[in-house]
Order: sequence, then structure tokens, then C-alpha cells
Amino acid sequence: MRRAQVVPQAGLPQQVSIYEVGPRDGLQNEPHSVSVQFKAEFIGRLAAAGLHTIEATSVVRPEWVPQLADAEQLMDMLDFAGAVRYPVLVPNIRGLERALGKGVRQIAVFASATETFAMKNLNRTLDQSLAMIAPVVSTALDAGLDVRGYVSMCFGDPWEGQVAVGQVVEVGRQLLDMGCQQLSLGDTIGVATAGQVTELIAAFGSAGVGVDALAVHFHDTYGQALANTLSALRSGITVIDSSAGGLGGCPFAKNATGNLATEDLVWMLDGLGIETGVDLAQLVEISLWMAKQLGKPSTSRVVRALSGGQ
Amino acid sequence: MRRAQVVPQAGLPQQVSIYEVGPRDGLQNEPHSVSVQFKAEFIGRLAAAGLHTIEATSVVRPEWVPQLADAEQLMDMLDFAGAVRYPVLVPNIRGLERALGKGVRQIAVFASATETFAMKNLNRTLDQSLAMIAPVVSTALDAGLDVRGYVSMCFGDPWEGQVAVGQVVEVGRQLLDMGCQQLSLGDTIGVATAGQVTELIAAFGSAGVGVDALAVHFHDTYGQALANTLSALRSGITVIDSSAGGLGGCPFAKNATGNLATEDLVWMLDGLGIETGVDLAQLVEISLWMAKQLGKPSTSRVVRALSGGQ
Repeated sequence: MRRAQVVPQAGLPQQVSIYEVGPRDGLQNEPHSVSVQFKAEFIGRLAAAGLHTIEATSVVRPEWVPQLADAEQLMDMLDFAGAVRYPVLVPNIRGLERALGKGVRQIAVFASATETFAMKNLNRTLDQSLAMIAPVVSTALDAGLDVRGYVSMCFGDPWEGQVAVGQVVEVGRQLLDMGCQQLSLGDTIGVATAGQVTELIAAFGSAGVGVDALAVHFHDTYGQALANTLSALRSGITVIDSSAGGLGGCPFAKNATGNLATEDLVWMLDGLGIETGVDLAQLVEISLWMAKQLGKPSTSRVVRALSGGQ
Repeated sequence: MRRAQVVPQAGLPQQVSIYEVGPRDGLQNEPHSVSVQFKAEFIGRLAAAGLHTIEATSVVRPEWVPQLADAEQLMDMLDFAGAVRYPVLVPNIRGLERALGKGVRQIAVFASATETFAMKNLNRTLDQSLAMIAPVVSTALDAGLDVRGYVSMCFGDPWEGQVAVGQVVEVGRQLLDMGCQQLSLGDTIGVATAGQVTELIAAFGSAGVGVDALAVHFHDTYGQALANTLSALRSGITVIDSSAGGLGGCPFAKNATGNLATEDLVWMLDGLGIETGVDLAQLVEISLWMAKQLGKPSTSRVVRALSGGQ
């Protein structure tokens, strides 16, 4: 299999942690469902390929996200005590209780940077949504869990348009003040360009939030995800969210692609000599197997290129 | 229509020239042919959208590239004396004579950075291929034309694997010594990553070739084209090749995408506040019209996102 030629670039980190979101953020947004046995195998294979953090599912009411209605069964099939981390997205206290009952060791909570998306997605004002999250975070911390806070619509919002940097920092600060150890800054609709990324990370820095507390979560809707990732790396970010095979469409733009593909990210990081611990060849095999199951080709360009024979 | 939010990034140029390759490099690699009238309209619409340099066709023997068998008819339909530049790819003296007869003002010649690709693509050794190009360049210069030299396989070769930077610089230097005013450094199989881009541009600099003489030509086969472009901008490159709608597949990787899409490039440049003179909304309309003609969706992520309705 062809591999990226290794040529480091000055000013970038030597090691990056990939936070794999395919089983949750990816499959949640795929129209075709797969069985819980298949998901467990997917997750197991991702772990075997070297991914050390794999967001497994979301403990939501089944009627909200039918694709994740098997969350409890799936959690029963995962080894939360092992070396690989399987964070679970938890929307509320009820969800946290269910996750704790299954032995989950890491959770993620979900906030919006904008008022409109909070209302559309969570049916609450921004303040109300943060008030809902606060007891989830504190209870999780009391139970010894790690907590990540997602901030969505950080770089643009389908209804509000531009999003003020100060507002994103404010929401992020509130999540950190609650006790979240890490923020994932999401470009939910994929509109961001490289300068915005630099600007937002610098704004967090000015507010006393260092890059060690930040991750980035880019969508490739406008083709910008990898360029934005390069920009984030240059700002010192070392945790990158991505989705195996580019799983997951964009619910806000029909026909558009969703998450940054883990393979395309790994190709770049391998080429830059940045360590991830991920075996790209294994990952490509997994995504081809998943694509067959879903009945459609992977959106990862690396998967497509390496599957075509050269 | 949604537009990129403008946030400049330090260390990048303020203006970029897009060298549009869709009509030639794009359509040459599309299985479906379009009529010469349609091509002329395509080119006219691209010019109206603000593209000032549009590589129109290649004057090759029709049996080599059936998609471009209409080169003479197409050249008859273009105004080579106007403000918009329509360079034409010319493989040999015979082709140059045909182009001169049509009033062409800019040509491009094509060289390989590697011995194997020179043999596979041109059926000549590297030295033989350069010897074939030399009189084309000198005759064109004598006729007052501008000459661009393509260097393909600059970052990797499907047969040779890694390509030594020194070899690329050597081929580029020979083209410049012949009199080419600009080199287009091509990642023909799309394998390059950001560090390679920095390295190659720096190597040209060390050999006395400044960024003003260089353009970059990235393929998105492994999803790296825009990240590599960002890297090239940071090195001071101000001429970027791209293809409207991402036209053109990759002949070396079945199922894979080809050229960097002009729309995805313009989205990034617009967002960075880098002037191009291109109207993105018009360009998206053109690519949707072309996609309809070709009977398949554009590979440009911007075109797909903006066509889906938001």
C-alpha cells in the first residue's frame, strides 16, 4: 500500500491524539443503520488499528436518535476498564445514570455556541442548556469520570450566520468552570477557514485557556477540514476529532459531506512525521468493510484512492 | 448564498492568481465528452466569473486525447487578443505551429520530474523529453509568447515512489534555463503532504528560484490539496492551479478525485481575505451546469454544499 512520504514541517507538534467519533457522530448521521453486533465489531477493529479514544455512542432517548437506540446494549459489549477509552455522549442526568450503570469512565456533554442552535437542537435557551449540563458534569466528576465539553457552531451558524469569537469563548469558559477537562471546538456546518481557527484558539489563550484544554472538530462540508486542522496544529492543538471513513453526513447541507475522515487526517499526520499510533492500512480496511455494510462508498479520499488499485 | 467569514491569517499573501485548468486538465480526464460549443461557453462563463487565466486546451494528436480532438475548432472560438489569458498546452513543435496559427499568446509545456513517468507518458527518457521541449520554448519565446513549464510527479511517482527534491529542482532549473517564465509544480498523484510542499519550495529558493517563478498544482486524491495549498501560501506562492467543480479524475487511482476544485480554493481564499477577483456564486452556478451536462455531481465540496440548500 502506498504511504505518505515523511517530511516534517517546523512549528507543529510531534504527537497528536485522534479522538475518533465515527461510531457516534458518524453512524448517528448515516441513514442506514447497522446492528449492535456490527457496531461493537467496528469499535473493536478501530481500537486494534491503534485508536485509543473512540466515542462509542450517545445515551439519548431512542426516539430522538433511532440510530443510537442500541446504546445500552452496545455499552454492555464494551470493556470500559481497559486501556482504550470509550467516551459516551450524555445529554442529561438520566443519561448519565444509565452510563454510570454500565461502567462508563469518560463522558462528553454537548453545548451550543449560539442561542438559535441551543433552541433548535436542545429546545432550550443557551443559559438553560448550560444549566442542564452543570449537574451532569458535577455528578460525573464526583463519580471520578473524565468530562469533555463539545461546543458546536463555533465558526458559523446556519441561522445566525457569523458567530462572535467572544461568545464561543464565553460558552467554553462556562463549561471549563463547571469542570470539563477538555473542550472540543466544533465547526458543525464546516464553513470555517484557516484564519478563523487561529483567531479562536488565540482568543481562548487570551482568556487564560491553553491549547492543552482544547480539541478541534472540523466538518468537511466546504472542503476546509484538513486545511483548518493544519492551522490548528500550528496553533499548538494536539487533540483532533475525526471519523473513520468520513462517516456521517451533514444534517445542515443536503449532498454535503460531514466529518473529517480519520484516514485523510492520518495521511497528513503520517506525512508530517507526527505520531498518532494509528495503522492507516488497517483503518482503510475497516472503512471499506463499513462502506460495504452501508452500501455506499466511503467519503474518505484516502480510502477511495487506496481501494482503487494503483 | 452562504459566504465564508473573512478572517485573515498572518504570513499569507494578500492576493492570489488562480490558474484555471478545468477546460484542459479537467475535461481531458473526464470520460464523458462535451461539444466544442459547450466548451467555448464554459470558458466564456469562467472568464465572466472573474478567472483571468484559463488553460483552454492541448494541441495534441487527436488519437492521444480524444476529449481534446476539437482543439483547433476551440481555438478558433477564443479571443486571444483580449484581457483574459487562454494558455494552451503544447507538446511539440508541430503543436506550437498549430497554436501560433490560431493566435495563441501563452503556451505551457509539460515535463516529468521522474524518468519512469517521462517514459510512460512521453515515451522518452527525461533528457530526450527535455530536448524535445527546448526548441518549443525557444520558438515560442521568439514569437513573443509567454511559456509556462509543468513539472509533474514532483512529490511522488506511482512507479518510483519517493521523488528526490534535488531531481525536481534540476528539471525545473532546466525548464527555466530554456526560458520558461513560470513553473507549475505538480502533485500528479495527490500524495504530497504539507511538509513536502514547504521543503520543495525552499529547495528551489536555495537554487536561486524565487516564489515569483513558481505555481503549485495539487490533486486531491488523498484529500491533501487544500492543506498543501495553505502550506504553499505560507511559503509565499501566489499562483495556484485549480479546476472548476473539481473536474478531472485521477488516471492513476480509480475511484479517486483529481484536481483541487476552484470553488473549494476560493472559499478558503475568500475566508482568508486573499483577493482573487473570482465571484464564487457565479462559479458554483457554472459547475452545477457542467455537472448536469456530464451527468454526475461535482466533486467540489463547496458546490455540493451550496447546491443542497441550507
